[in-house]
Amino acid sequence: MTLSVDLNADMGESFGAWRLGDDAALLEVVTSANIACGFHAGDPDVMAATITLAHSNGVGIGAHPGFRDLAGFGRHRMQVPQATLANDVRYQLGAALGMAAPVGATVRHLKLHGALANMCAEDEALAKACYQAALSVVPDLTIMVIAATAQQRAAEALGCRWVGEIFADRSYNDDATLVDRRQPGAVIHDPAQAAARVVEMVQEGAIIAASGARIPARIDTICLHGDTAEAVQIARAVRSGLEGAGVVVERFAVG
Amino acid sequence: MTLSVDLNADMGESFGAWRLGDDAALLEVVTSANIACGFHAGDPDVMAATITLAHSNGVGIGAHPGFRDLAGFGRHRMQVPQATLANDVRYQLGAALGMAAPVGATVRHLKLHGALANMCAEDEALAKACYQAALSVVPDLTIMVIAATAQQRAAEALGCRWVGEIFADRSYNDDATLVDRRQPGAVIHDPAQAAARVVEMVQEGAIIAASGARIPARIDTICLHGDTAEAVQIARAVRSGLEGAGVVVERFAVG
Amino acid sequence: MTLSVDLNADMGESFGAWRLGDDAALLEVVTSANIACGFHAGDPDVMAATITLAHSNGVGIGAHPGFRDLAGFGRHRMQVPQATLANDVRYQLGAALGMAAPVGATVRHLKLHGALANMCAEDEALAKACYQAALSVVPDLTIMVIAATAQQRAAEALGCRWVGEIFADRSYNDDATLVDRRQPGAVIHDPAQAAARVVEMVQEGAIIAASGARIPARIDTICLHGDTAEAVQIARAVRSGLEGAGVVVERFAVG
Amino acid sequence: MTLSVDLNADMGESFGAWRLGDDAALLEVVTSANIACGFHAGDPDVMAATITLAHSNGVGIGAHPGFRDLAGFGRHRMQVPQATLANDVRYQLGAALGMAAPVGATVRHLKLHGALANMCAEDEALAKACYQAALSVVPDLTIMVIAATAQQRAAEALGCRWVGEIFADRSYNDDATLVDRRQPGAVIHDPAQAAARVVEMVQEGAIIAASGARIPARIDTICLHGDTAEAVQIARAVRSGLEGAGVVVERFAVG
Repeated sequence: MTLSVDLNADMGESFGAWRLGDDAALLEVVTSANIACGFHAGDPDVMAATITLAHSNGVGIGAHPGFRDLAGFGRHRMQVPQATLANDVRYQLGAALGMAAPVGATVRHLKLHGALANMCAEDEALAKACYQAALSVVPDLTIMVIAATAQQRAAEALGCRWVGEIFADRSYNDDATLVDRRQPGAVIHDPAQAAARVVEMVQEGAIIAASGARIPARIDTICLHGDTAEAVQIARAVRSGLEGAGVVVERFAVG
Repeated sequence: MTLSVDLNADMGESFGAWRLGDDAALLEVVTSANIACGFHAGDPDVMAATITLAHSNGVGIGAHPGFRDLAGFGRHRMQVPQATLANDVRYQLGAALGMAAPVGATVRHLKLHGALANMCAEDEALAKACYQAALSVVPDLTIMVIAATAQQRAAEALGCRWVGEIFADRSYNDDATLVDRRQPGAVIHDPAQAAARVVEMVQEGAIIAASGARIPARIDTICLHGDTAEAVQIARAVRSGLEGAGVVVERFAVG
Repeated sequence: MTLSVDLNADMGESFGAWRLGDDAALLEVVTSANIACGFHAGDPDVMAATITLAHSNGVGIGAHPGFRDLAGFGRHRMQVPQATLANDVRYQLGAALGMAAPVGATVRHLKLHGALANMCAEDEALAKACYQAALSVVPDLTIMVIAATAQQRAAEALGCRWVGEIFADRSYNDDATLVDRRQPGAVIHDPAQAAARVVEMVQEGAIIAASGARIPARIDTICLHGDTAEAVQIARAVRSGLEGAGVVVERFAVG
Repeated sequence: MTLSVDLNADMGESFGAWRLGDDAALLEVVTSANIACGFHAGDPDVMAATITLAHSNGVGIGAHPGFRDLAGFGRHRMQVPQATLANDVRYQLGAALGMAAPVGATVRHLKLHGALANMCAEDEALAKACYQAALSVVPDLTIMVIAATAQQRAAEALGCRWVGEIFADRSYNDDATLVDRRQPGAVIHDPAQAAARVVEMVQEGAIIAASGARIPARIDTICLHGDTAEAVQIARAVRSGLEGAGVVVERFAVG
């Protein structure tokens, strides 16, 4: 049996006069792009340009909604009523549809951003509220969840299409949570090391914790970061590593 | 032959803690609602609530995009590149789609707001850029244009579906432009007077200027304002006046 | 000995085209005005108009900073780094200075808004960070604290000028916290009742809990709300009640 | 007699997660820094950091207000009422005061940004409204004007302190306006060329047009840009060129 996996990265995180990330380079490596939708980053020009480039590269497009927090890049936790968050998700997803339609692109998936994603990885009810809102707009949308978290449980409970994601450059605790960034080794900066462990996790179908413990998980897609110095290098190394190990790198299947 | 006409009003112009307009009352009078899309007014909660109520009242729903100018309510003219404006329109229309889909509502039309509308009433190229952008998202969208302006010429040039609008409470110059608000009589405050002239214009198929001059025009819909003290009274008077004169008040036809 | 007390209310909470509260009416009752500074409400025009009117009425002026959360009116709790919050407070206080200087008004005090105020009532370190930031801009500023909370402890620890505040229309628990709004009787709607208990608390120098328990407290100022239907009526009743009981209603003393 | 001149550049134009310009490098070259105030760029953290660094480098600090247009970086012309613009200037200047006070820095000057600056270079009444607003907050503020424009005439008419500015990297028409950016040679990219003409203009006390024409002008400060690839190189070349020609590079004098 041939293994295959999707590679995803956040994209379109520039805003107005400000540039962030090397989207053009990443779009030659990844197979799915999570497009910021204007609340934490991204503006309509940036969204249009990024979606157009992703689509022309054959990269799958997803909406990447976050908190309404431009100054904090969506990284501040906010206590927003669930009904409001649900509408915020509908709005941002709809906006992504509006930017994708003119170039004939489909918004295939949704992935939550930043603090909203982190809160939903801990709070199944919150995750369900956000996912249900998205599915109320696009019923056959695929939800991209952080594997083995409340995000995944929410998607399972909803019975919707979902794909499970692991991080290429973050160490895991034995309970599948991420090692705190302040701990040594929490973030992996070496492309070769990142590649090797991604290959191993994909082949074993398990998250491999820092302790060496195996946590079986559905690994459909690998999250690559786009906003650090070594981001593109790690992305390329991961892709090469996977292909070298015989893993097919391709967009996750839908339908 | 029975005459019919649509009545439209701007809606959903509240934002966060701030309320504006009596949407619930107007939604019992109008047949089309222009929903603010978040750039000059409206937020996702307001959009959702307004679209839901409009839809349940059988009122046709339209997107009402404006400049990105919350502090100025979209009333400040801004020199924004056409390509950026086009993307701003796509984004706002998409957002409206995202809020309408969950309640099974269709976004049937688009009407530009405030300073953007005024600029497009004078500049056919700008109007075309905005309308093309909207049609690139929803090809069979009906464009609501201010009759006998560059907005109408733009829609005609594009060959798209459009409906022509006149104002219930504004006086016209002989060239079909509006009398400057600073002139006496520019704004009509008396409900009976507003109703009488609307009936006359619909029956004659012409804009009637303050001078008495007739300017033949396609009058598909009457714009009612929602943000003044007498707004709801004028709206009710216009509707009663039209119905009393045998004019059918109903949503404009599409398709 | 003659008792005296200050009456304060939040002001200038309109934004752009949106009006909120009856500031002109309240400014005839209160002796201190907390001016929204643009992050959760208020814009430069609103600030200028409100400060000008307050100053001409002899009402003391305070800055009323909140979270950068216009859509949520500063009512959403946000996990913002303390250093960022400190700079947000400096910025908003500075802006208030910029609006007050042209009319010769002094910004005498600072009171935190909404969710930021609530969080600082529970977290002394957070309150200290905000207050120190304000004092780094205006060293002799008076901090208006919610009496008997972490806000008060923070001000005491800093050794700065402060005044203690109680609420005219909220019931208290025995530990001086507010009764949850969802409980019956949590919010007092009857002007006479609000007035009677404020008079009693001022005369006793104690917060009187719903249970009847007395919690000794420094009561320098009474918080009146401005955004509810009965707000102005309660404000007037409280002032009349105090004056009728021989309590002098005047701006809190500084220096 | 020894000639002296000030070098100024826009600073603090990052926002949230987004970086723009190499402020640290420029702050080793310039003698005055124009600090973005949050409406078109800059946030309180960025303002605090930039002002602190500028102050510790002995660089003079100025407020750099612009239109409320974050998405457009203040580069879109907007038709905002003068009274509103005046309050926007007061607000932004006040905010700068709030960020400068804690580090003991003085806000010495004000320079308008982007489209607002361009409009005020053409419209003396608009420039006067903005400058009067600033002076109503800080009466002894120095206004930095684009030499030989309506900005200068406005400052002269007000009788306030002002300094005249020319651009290091822009070609001039014979009427002292800038050559349109779309014309060849409108922007000077070569550091040596930029330096040579700045030295010549300072020594002659005149703007030298592309045609070679001399327009006598008060040249107190040279505007260096901070947001292009060659910006720091040009800045260093201009400073070296001036110093090599015996011109003293120092903060403009006040008082």
